[in-house]
Amino acid sequence: MQDIKNNIRSYVEARREQMLEDLIRLCRIPSTAQNPAALSAAASEVAAALASCGASPRIFEIEGGAPIVYGEIGSGERTLLVYNHYDVQPADPLDLWRTDPFTPTIEGDAFYCRGASDNKGNFMARVHAVRALQAATGKLPVRIKFLIEGEEETSSAHLGAFVREHRELLKADGCLWECSWKDPRGRPILTCGLKGLCYVELRARGARHDMHSSYAAIVPNPAWRLVWALATLLDSDYRITIPGWTDEIRPPDAAASRALDRVQFDEEAFRTLHGVHEFVRRLSGRELVRQFLSCPTVTICGLRAGYTGEGAKTVLPAEAVAKLDFRLVPDMTPKKLLAALRRHLDRRGFRDIEIKEFGGVMPAATSCDDRLVRAAAAAVRMTAGVEPIIYPVAPWSGPLYDVCGVLGIPSVAFGVGHADSCDHAPNENISMDDYFEGVRCMAAFLGEYAAIP
Amino acid sequence: MQDIKNNIRSYVEARREQMLEDLIRLCRIPSTAQNPAALSAAASEVAAALASCGASPRIFEIEGGAPIVYGEIGSGERTLLVYNHYDVQPADPLDLWRTDPFTPTIEGDAFYCRGASDNKGNFMARVHAVRALQAATGKLPVRIKFLIEGEEETSSAHLGAFVREHRELLKADGCLWECSWKDPRGRPILTCGLKGLCYVELRARGARHDMHSSYAAIVPNPAWRLVWALATLLDSDYRITIPGWTDEIRPPDAAASRALDRVQFDEEAFRTLHGVHEFVRRLSGRELVRQFLSCPTVTICGLRAGYTGEGAKTVLPAEAVAKLDFRLVPDMTPKKLLAALRRHLDRRGFRDIEIKEFGGVMPAATSCDDRLVRAAAAAVRMTAGVEPIIYPVAPWSGPLYDVCGVLGIPSVAFGVGHADSCDHAPNENISMDDYFEGVRCMAAFLGEYAAIP
Repeated sequence: MQDIKNNIRSYVEARREQMLEDLIRLCRIPSTAQNPAALSAAASEVAAALASCGASPRIFEIEGGAPIVYGEIGSGERTLLVYNHYDVQPADPLDLWRTDPFTPTIEGDAFYCRGASDNKGNFMARVHAVRALQAATGKLPVRIKFLIEGEEETSSAHLGAFVREHRELLKADGCLWECSWKDPRGRPILTCGLKGLCYVELRARGARHDMHSSYAAIVPNPAWRLVWALATLLDSDYRITIPGWTDEIRPPDAAASRALDRVQFDEEAFRTLHGVHEFVRRLSGRELVRQFLSCPTVTICGLRAGYTGEGAKTVLPAEAVAKLDFRLVPDMTPKKLLAALRRHLDRRGFRDIEIKEFGGVMPAATSCDDRLVRAAAAAVRMTAGVEPIIYPVAPWSGPLYDVCGVLGIPSVAFGVGHADSCDHAPNENISMDDYFEGVRCMAAFLGEYAAIP
Repeated sequence: MQDIKNNIRSYVEARREQMLEDLIRLCRIPSTAQNPAALSAAASEVAAALASCGASPRIFEIEGGAPIVYGEIGSGERTLLVYNHYDVQPADPLDLWRTDPFTPTIEGDAFYCRGASDNKGNFMARVHAVRALQAATGKLPVRIKFLIEGEEETSSAHLGAFVREHRELLKADGCLWECSWKDPRGRPILTCGLKGLCYVELRARGARHDMHSSYAAIVPNPAWRLVWALATLLDSDYRITIPGWTDEIRPPDAAASRALDRVQFDEEAFRTLHGVHEFVRRLSGRELVRQFLSCPTVTICGLRAGYTGEGAKTVLPAEAVAKLDFRLVPDMTPKKLLAALRRHLDRRGFRDIEIKEFGGVMPAATSCDDRLVRAAAAAVRMTAGVEPIIYPVAPWSGPLYDVCGVLGIPSVAFGVGHADSCDHAPNENISMDDYFEGVRCMAAFLGEYAAIP
């Protein structure tokens, strides 16, 4: 075992340039939902990467969506499904990037590019781990199935149907989910589940066109309508005030509670890193951890009305828009919640507020005691040399239910991000050391998962 | 008198092309506050126009501001100050313009360009009226002083000091204010006063950078802070809820009340024109007119936070900004109100909300019985052939107090706009017929004002 570990370490050291070049090639593709050509190019690049590790790729074209790439390699008693995605969030706000968002830029140990952490760095580390393990041992101890989609950042509209349609192809004993991060002290976080998500746009309309603001004395202002409607959704303690919203929440079980109590969330480091003066409701300690990992949220992700440039413009806007994401914990369901939102707005006198739905994903969670989780924890200990932090449900979201819920398999996630990776934000980056460590961790995990009773 | 009227009509008919060319040349200059070079160019063009009517122009350079152009011509017992401005509002939102905002475009009787109505068309009509009257009668019956500034759309930061410094130069018996419009039925509106204005930006700050929205469970969201703060300023009946805000309001006097009761506000035509389903509080009739002309307002002119593009982006914004304009009626004062706003936010728990002030203007009003108003009404009757509508206080704003309040003179306004001129909004336009009528109305007014007892 120690030999294999050393062989892999040597292999990785010797091939750092190749591993970086492959990552740069994939990151350079601006594969946002707004750019279908780039999505296709990224799918081809993913297929090429899978071919490079011997996992003969298949590209499934998806009508009205981005291609899904599948690849399979290895043998053994257990089969591991590996899920990643090649699409990325838009790069806005562009003016806050220190580098061009789609020109991979290396500064010291840092690798900057949109998608470096979410999720291309993770995918590429896993591909190289498969190559490394084969080179070091001559074989793979488990069967690996790669499932790489291109619509994760826009709610994975076609993934659920694809999984249902290809149950046999995707059959596996467990799933390695897309990614994870280190905390501000550098301790890797393992996640056993994900919050769900509903994303909606609320829109209020006023006059047919923007008007001189002097008319605001008598003409209803959609920006005010929107503000008043929003203010009914969340109180100033950040508690959701939509009737029925929390009815379906299932409290953490005993294993999850134990894991939550062991979570070391470094408040000071987090606050310093992100420039946060205080947490919501001035929470700290266990209360803060539970608020972070076990509670639903409603977030204003965007507001837009009227004049938003420099200086003063006296205009009465014709419309106002808010983008909201709702994070859900097990067992909340998007469909019921969206109905509750509509009902609430109607009852509070906001029938005029339009709701546009951008899809939703279900929350999902695996037991913190599962063999898959234990194998991942062992791999992290072995490569990072520290005890991982385990999140029963991670506060972010993804189509975990659409894959593992539908297939009825457990899942776990670890990855190459760090606490300041700025996913979904300007200056997204990973540490190159973490990237290479991620290759070694994945290789160790494959060995552990094959062997664990 | 009838002769003069006919001479002027013939003169205007014969010189329509010239009058349009002069307007096109001025409108083509994108003289927004964001473009200092264009402001200078517009000031030069204004000076050239004044020179063309014999009013030897002087350009006063203003440190840190846009030039003020002054010109003087004529003689007689009475002196009329004419106030206009050559700066314009920004053209955003650009995608809603049917034509390029700074390429004057003629379609049928309509003349499209940012600034056509507010305020370049009015200025140019007045210059041509002076030329017409001189051509038709060989002289001017009053002394005219033109005061043309370039910072009206950004609260006229330097005008008040300029007027105080040049009291003697600007000394006059009355002032013709910048502009007015016809109502949806084509009845010219005369205005005897203006609401005041405070313009502020409210800003909430969160983390140092935009974050992945999963952190919104624990990291305060500035967009929510802003929404909650805004919701404390105005109730859903559009009544301002800032303590002390309405304390200084002086109710309309007898003459103003009579004028208000005579205002014919065509609700149906207005609603059809602007696509307005209903007025605030479902008001109509006299109540609606008083709400429009005699009440203060607070208007969200702009909202900006996080991601505002197409589709979904799950981001926790680092900051949120609202642009607000407050319209004031006599005798509200911006300074006291801004202090009340700060006090209110502090008391409601929003010390973190920053207020950036963009200057304010005082409300001001002239008696509806003033000789100046009677002369203007007579001129409108004579040229438009209908009884004007008189607004004791117009719902829009301008630095009326900084000029007429400081100089202690009455003011009145009429102009070339119509009810769908879209001032401050996309597709700003005037009717060319109104422009030429505006030339004749100004010429008639000069005669009336010279003669009225």
